[in-house]
Amino acid sequence: MPDGDFDAIVIGAGSGGLTVAVGLAGLGRRVALVEASRMGGDCTNTGCIPSKRLIHLSRDPDRDGAAVLADVRATRDGLEARERREMREHPNITLIEGRAEITSPGAVRVEGAPGGRSLSAGQIIVATGSRARRLEIPGLPAERVLTNEHLFELDAPPGHLAILGAGAIGLEMACAFARLGTRITLIDIADRVLPTAIPEASEAVATAMRHRGIDLVLGARATGFRESGRVLLLETPAGPREVAGVDRVLIAIGRVPNVEGLGLDRVGVETGPRGIRVDTWGRTGVRGVWAVGDVTGSLQTHAANALGRRIVQRIAFPWLPPLGRPPLIPSAVFSDPEVAWVGLTPGAIAGRCAPGAVVHLRVDLADTDRGLTDDVRHGFVAIDAVRLTGRILGATAVGPGASELIAHLALAIDRRISLLRLSRQVYAYPTHAGAIGRAADDFARATLGNLPGEAASYARHRFRRPRPGATRP
Amino acid sequence: MPDGDFDAIVIGAGSGGLTVAVGLAGLGRRVALVEASRMGGDCTNTGCIPSKRLIHLSRDPDRDGAAVLADVRATRDGLEARERREMREHPNITLIEGRAEITSPGAVRVEGAPGGRSLSAGQIIVATGSRARRLEIPGLPAERVLTNEHLFELDAPPGHLAILGAGAIGLEMACAFARLGTRITLIDIADRVLPTAIPEASEAVATAMRHRGIDLVLGARATGFRESGRVLLLETPAGPREVAGVDRVLIAIGRVPNVEGLGLDRVGVETGPRGIRVDTWGRTGVRGVWAVGDVTGSLQTHAANALGRRIVQRIAFPWLPPLGRPPLIPSAVFSDPEVAWVGLTPGAIAGRCAPGAVVHLRVDLADTDRGLTDDVRHGFVAIDAVRLTGRILGATAVGPGASELIAHLALAIDRRISLLRLSRQVYAYPTHAGAIGRAADDFARATLGNLPGEAASYARHRFRRPRPGATRP
Repeated sequence: MPDGDFDAIVIGAGSGGLTVAVGLAGLGRRVALVEASRMGGDCTNTGCIPSKRLIHLSRDPDRDGAAVLADVRATRDGLEARERREMREHPNITLIEGRAEITSPGAVRVEGAPGGRSLSAGQIIVATGSRARRLEIPGLPAERVLTNEHLFELDAPPGHLAILGAGAIGLEMACAFARLGTRITLIDIADRVLPTAIPEASEAVATAMRHRGIDLVLGARATGFRESGRVLLLETPAGPREVAGVDRVLIAIGRVPNVEGLGLDRVGVETGPRGIRVDTWGRTGVRGVWAVGDVTGSLQTHAANALGRRIVQRIAFPWLPPLGRPPLIPSAVFSDPEVAWVGLTPGAIAGRCAPGAVVHLRVDLADTDRGLTDDVRHGFVAIDAVRLTGRILGATAVGPGASELIAHLALAIDRRISLLRLSRQVYAYPTHAGAIGRAADDFARATLGNLPGEAASYARHRFRRPRPGATRP
Repeated sequence: MPDGDFDAIVIGAGSGGLTVAVGLAGLGRRVALVEASRMGGDCTNTGCIPSKRLIHLSRDPDRDGAAVLADVRATRDGLEARERREMREHPNITLIEGRAEITSPGAVRVEGAPGGRSLSAGQIIVATGSRARRLEIPGLPAERVLTNEHLFELDAPPGHLAILGAGAIGLEMACAFARLGTRITLIDIADRVLPTAIPEASEAVATAMRHRGIDLVLGARATGFRESGRVLLLETPAGPREVAGVDRVLIAIGRVPNVEGLGLDRVGVETGPRGIRVDTWGRTGVRGVWAVGDVTGSLQTHAANALGRRIVQRIAFPWLPPLGRPPLIPSAVFSDPEVAWVGLTPGAIAGRCAPGAVVHLRVDLADTDRGLTDDVRHGFVAIDAVRLTGRILGATAVGPGASELIAHLALAIDRRISLLRLSRQVYAYPTHAGAIGRAADDFARATLGNLPGEAASYARHRFRRPRPGATRP
């Protein structure tokens, strides 16, 4: 197999890597795409695609769990095959199977191909993703342990699934498997589910899950497993607790970046606990070495795609000034109810604004007409905005289609469209998006109804320093 | 019962009337609200609310049709009672039951209350709504005829429902009743369903409905009914056709404004075939007489609410200059798939722009990752935009949550946010909203990849007159 010289070498064919490879190749660059395993990375194979397929199919009460899991694998395999074919057929992409190691700036060695292979390129993009963080539970047999890498390989839904970690993966899989008839015990060391969302969202999701019969154990950690009786031992705030009859334990407590064996140290690429350190353009500290996706600690497919596009722009058009704020990245969790948010977190807002300068608005979907017709009990739209001006700082949506609604709020934040302006928008009736309009109306009514007071509050608080120590990460 | 003097008299307590009454009352005006029948008008009683409740409940395959209809009535009645209570308890609203007639500018007589009642006010708002347009079908017994006014009173879903009219009501009820097990024959005189939407949307909905076993007969009209065998006789483009075994016929061929008996002629308020003529602020030609809602020919609840708010603004703050474009009104149809659109129609675009100045973009949801995971076969996002600048002129969404997505597109149109700008927005993955981002990407790629050509096309076509006669209503 001949060695080769390319314009760029992309290490890892997940979402971030594919975005960069296809983007550069589409602009005429010759790209080597190195992947040791399947095309599409976690997203296609063990993340977004199989999980969303599972969530969708689990809504059909007539479907058998084993058939659902088989369909999930077929869908995923079909997409993986399509992506592989597209990469193989792309005239400017050379797909190379194997493990890549950066041997010096501009040089990569691929192990796996017979005899190895040496590649060179002016640009190297590291997109090696992440893997599930492991957890040792004394006494738990390996065959009972699942991560997102094994979950979709199950022949049938387990009878009783304990899930450690109530983040995005844990919540989504708890909801989907519960619908397939699996008994779920969901455990998190934090005192609320989805600690990256606002507490109101955590509460809504937790309430909905408990209503659905999911056993939620918060502030707890697993201390051991007793095979006789299949008992998972927990340490909870109320003391020790035993959960019996557990068939499988899904470990979903976070991700570890795949930084090992890449030769990063050798070329001087800096890494931290969340992965490779990059700036907002995907640049590492080493010229010609970039990183994108989970390996940088940014764990959502759309964030990887967005950074990938910025990398393509910098590599293909280096003479363009690197201007433009980095785009707003929304977050979305496809639990039931869905949760999505965008903009500043409450902690970041507290770090920037005095409390009196910000107003918190909330409209419960249950109080809207569409919420009434569609029996929505746990959904809401919450918006933090600057008093008087109505500039939106952050927003969260919980409920049906929350991940769709957040696009509207993201545009309003990005284009600095005030709530006063949104209150003039006409929303189709009856829709959940109308709740955004209603929050805007509430703001407009309160503001215009007390203009002198609001103006005085604004003047008093807007330019004050926030409380010291109010910033949270 | 004492006569009375008010700041405003609102005739009709449907969506438009309630918006004006509550809006003015909230600003301290004394409002007489006259309603001859139920609170909430068509929306609450025979329109949006019962239809959306029916659509929601019909998705549960385990629910019995009769139970669904009983629930629909209970939901509607509960909302009606709440709205009635709110109006009764409002300190600034006097709810008067009866039929109102304008006797002279500023004076209204209400029949129905014992002895009648005379009211006076500086402002009179007509919000009397509309009713189903009737159609005489020779031989069809009255007890087999349904309109939206009777439909939700059925004890159980009919075995075979023929629907005349494939507009919003016809499509929504066809989809919902089909899910409840009713055999549906859907007939329209036009050659496509939903003729107010773009043809692509009509085609997608028609295909989806046919896949679902709904018998769609287009370009056809009903010529008679033979009770023996319950045969509906149709004249179709392929010749006469008999549809046997029809239990009920739902007439959904349009609406007639309720303009009769109001004394409109007497005070000089002008009406046309679509109803009372009003300007963009709800003003009739007669000072102090306004109209809102279906009676003006504008047939969507959110359009009525929007105009109602503008009327409140003019009445309560007459010294404010009547500035500001009228808001963009989206359209939404809750068929399966949903259809929603906003902005200029293709006809209006053809009347304003030379064809070479406009680009039509379309992204099929089936080609997106969320479409793949969720088996979306008939959905798409279509956008008409100005070449080069990417200004969005009109947009249509078809598919799950289309009525939610349209809010995002409406904001982009209203704030003149270019597709070039939208292509920089990051959409949560995997969502249907991402298809909007993909359309924007397609536009950006085509435009930036051929900037000289696009600029030349823009210069050549943008300021040319469109083809004569290209405007369609």
